[in-house]
Amino acid sequence: MTSFIKCFIENPPKADWSKILARPNPGGADIAATVADILTEVKNRGDRAVIEYNTRFDGYSKDNFEVSAQEMKEAITLLPDNLKEAIIQASKNITLFHENQLVDQQPVETMPGVLCWRKSVPIEKVGLYIPGGTAPLFSSVLMLGIPANIAGCKEIILCSPPQKDGNIHPAILFAAHITGITRIFKVGGAQAIAAMAFGTDTVPAVYKITGPGNRYVTEAKQMITKYGIAIDMPAGPSEVLVFADEGANPSFVAADLLSQAEHGEDSQVVLICPHRAFFDLVEIEIEKQLKVLPRREIAIKALENSVAIAMNDSSLAMDLINDYAPEHLIMALRNPTDFVKDIRNAGSVFLGDFTPEAAGDYASGTNHTLPTNGFAKAFSGVSVDSFIKKITFQQVSPTGLELLGPVVATMAAAEQLEAHRQAILIRLENNGR
Amino acid sequence: MTSFIKCFIENPPKADWSKILARPNPGGADIAATVADILTEVKNRGDRAVIEYNTRFDGYSKDNFEVSAQEMKEAITLLPDNLKEAIIQASKNITLFHENQLVDQQPVETMPGVLCWRKSVPIEKVGLYIPGGTAPLFSSVLMLGIPANIAGCKEIILCSPPQKDGNIHPAILFAAHITGITRIFKVGGAQAIAAMAFGTDTVPAVYKITGPGNRYVTEAKQMITKYGIAIDMPAGPSEVLVFADEGANPSFVAADLLSQAEHGEDSQVVLICPHRAFFDLVEIEIEKQLKVLPRREIAIKALENSVAIAMNDSSLAMDLINDYAPEHLIMALRNPTDFVKDIRNAGSVFLGDFTPEAAGDYASGTNHTLPTNGFAKAFSGVSVDSFIKKITFQQVSPTGLELLGPVVATMAAAEQLEAHRQAILIRLENNGR
Repeated sequence: MTSFIKCFIENPPKADWSKILARPNPGGADIAATVADILTEVKNRGDRAVIEYNTRFDGYSKDNFEVSAQEMKEAITLLPDNLKEAIIQASKNITLFHENQLVDQQPVETMPGVLCWRKSVPIEKVGLYIPGGTAPLFSSVLMLGIPANIAGCKEIILCSPPQKDGNIHPAILFAAHITGITRIFKVGGAQAIAAMAFGTDTVPAVYKITGPGNRYVTEAKQMITKYGIAIDMPAGPSEVLVFADEGANPSFVAADLLSQAEHGEDSQVVLICPHRAFFDLVEIEIEKQLKVLPRREIAIKALENSVAIAMNDSSLAMDLINDYAPEHLIMALRNPTDFVKDIRNAGSVFLGDFTPEAAGDYASGTNHTLPTNGFAKAFSGVSVDSFIKKITFQQVSPTGLELLGPVVATMAAAEQLEAHRQAILIRLENNGR
Repeated sequence: MTSFIKCFIENPPKADWSKILARPNPGGADIAATVADILTEVKNRGDRAVIEYNTRFDGYSKDNFEVSAQEMKEAITLLPDNLKEAIIQASKNITLFHENQLVDQQPVETMPGVLCWRKSVPIEKVGLYIPGGTAPLFSSVLMLGIPANIAGCKEIILCSPPQKDGNIHPAILFAAHITGITRIFKVGGAQAIAAMAFGTDTVPAVYKITGPGNRYVTEAKQMITKYGIAIDMPAGPSEVLVFADEGANPSFVAADLLSQAEHGEDSQVVLICPHRAFFDLVEIEIEKQLKVLPRREIAIKALENSVAIAMNDSSLAMDLINDYAPEHLIMALRNPTDFVKDIRNAGSVFLGDFTPEAAGDYASGTNHTLPTNGFAKAFSGVSVDSFIKKITFQQVSPTGLELLGPVVATMAAAEQLEAHRQAILIRLENNGR
């Protein structure tokens, strides 16, 4: 029997893990030079360059590429009611989850008279990027726009490439509308990132850019960090790891693997299961379920990049999972909460049989913009934190300085920074002025 | 009268602000190629390359470049008691301030049966970089090591270039010792960043690298982000902005400006003051205080990069401050807390006459690793947040999925992701299995 998941391995030794779990490398020509050119053009020629790229890449040649109030209005009337209702419900859940992420630290008196605190302040100007392509990713509008709005960002702009008909999909516009996004521009790719980084006559410059994108967008985001523009995180192809035990439902597992695989040919799915017999049941389910999928060819290609591993030691399985650091981790276990304490590296975790990744992709409330490619070892997904800075404050009283001053003066002297020491001494001498 | 601060301007129009407040550009040859070479050499040849760079750049040619337990012990005995006590007191304050930064989000039930939460998990392996140079920056060891330790990072390593005598300064070793840093390596510059990013036989690879450094270190940190290694933030020369009102003490203001200026020739200080007469008093104080400074030549050069601005509208002054986004902001005002609400962009803020920057540089409790170069518009300083990831979790009950499922299915259909929809439907069909 030929399997869809090409590689099945039983209890691989630790030394082999990194080879077995290597992410697919998209390869292809080096795109750095192309992207650097686009950045330079947009930086130097602004809107003119944007319009030329719009014409060349998206067949959109109009001088005015901002979405008008009229277009926005039409989009809202165009969208079917059931979809509007679903988007509003998802938006409510996402808002509920994200709104208590904003926590200010209470002031701490580190020594008598030495008061220190931290204040969350919104990043004033942020840019969201929403890719075009085969499907309108309006869910990403919610996932970026809602936390930006809760953070209190003053200017939230959005760039997305125009469709063939010259419009942005109404679902994207509707999601933007209910999320408080102020301005929307029809521009995609590296040129969109450049426009938001450097600003043009039409597109305002922002301080941080978030959102998914293809390799050109990712390269552009990485490059503009050199100019001090912040980005959410480096991005790679999407991935899921499903950890299933004996009691898991093979048809649920197959459905979860396929829902990741349909994202793109470079998606990766990993299955950890108890034994060969379980894997075989999953394969049978994959074959059955593939039949109804419009994106079956994409899913089949993605499965070829993928791997199933049978492991009979669950603690070792957890080590492997933490080594891989999956973007999405589905714990299809009888006692999933027992394992929460052992999860060290993952983007978002789905516990139990009735928590498919799709729930978090759209509407459970958690964010779906997550670290891929093993970056979950050091990065978090997008949250309200992504749209704020935390400024520290301190206020020392004259008495406080009498306690703190000598500590500072001693340390400054040892670091040979005499002016630092003097800034303390001159105050201690004029304490009661 | 020639002034030390070369540029004095009264009430400049908004259009001129960005020109007046332009950061000094260090210029110099392009170092990207040199740094890329060093990264490649260390990646390919590991310890051999590190030892060669150690020999070439720091005159240290020993094969073993890890600090031994014996060296650590000696350092502790070498250090004068008053310095040890000061470091311990600073460490207590920094710990007090940082330890309540670790907040877990309470679970949120976004819909009945849909439970979502966020868990802070330490980044397992982190690397700290401490520059060498004219003075031993042991305070930075505290500022990076303490939050990493509070976060719960398992492996905290430190790289710092050896001094001429082949040792790392005992104050750095002592600060590392009390901070729980497990391993220390004598290696500096881009080669240290490369060793921590890629790992060598001696230096373990880490997931995140934090800490200050010169242009080579900064370039190397930026480059290794391409490999998914996280960094704290892009770094530039240090800077302070002092906002003084009529009642401020010119000698305190001068001392604060000088304590920033002595950091390096490329430091920048900005003074906002009520009028020319105040500026003149500050200049007189600068002249007087410069006399006792060993690093006076450096300070004089830095002042040449600097600017004083008289502004008679304090609300406009706040706009200018937010435009500049200073790393350090000293509010030498009679009513500094009234202005806290207007501060949108700054790294760390020092309120009132008795809160010099030096307090926060060493021991008030706040962190001194802060965004420079205007990056405070989008970046925060180092905190416990810098050493954790936040993993999201969700658990949906069968009943929860009955409520949430239709929302997800509708959205998935609209995004043309049928497998996502199927992952919901197959569960709703097998809900009571």
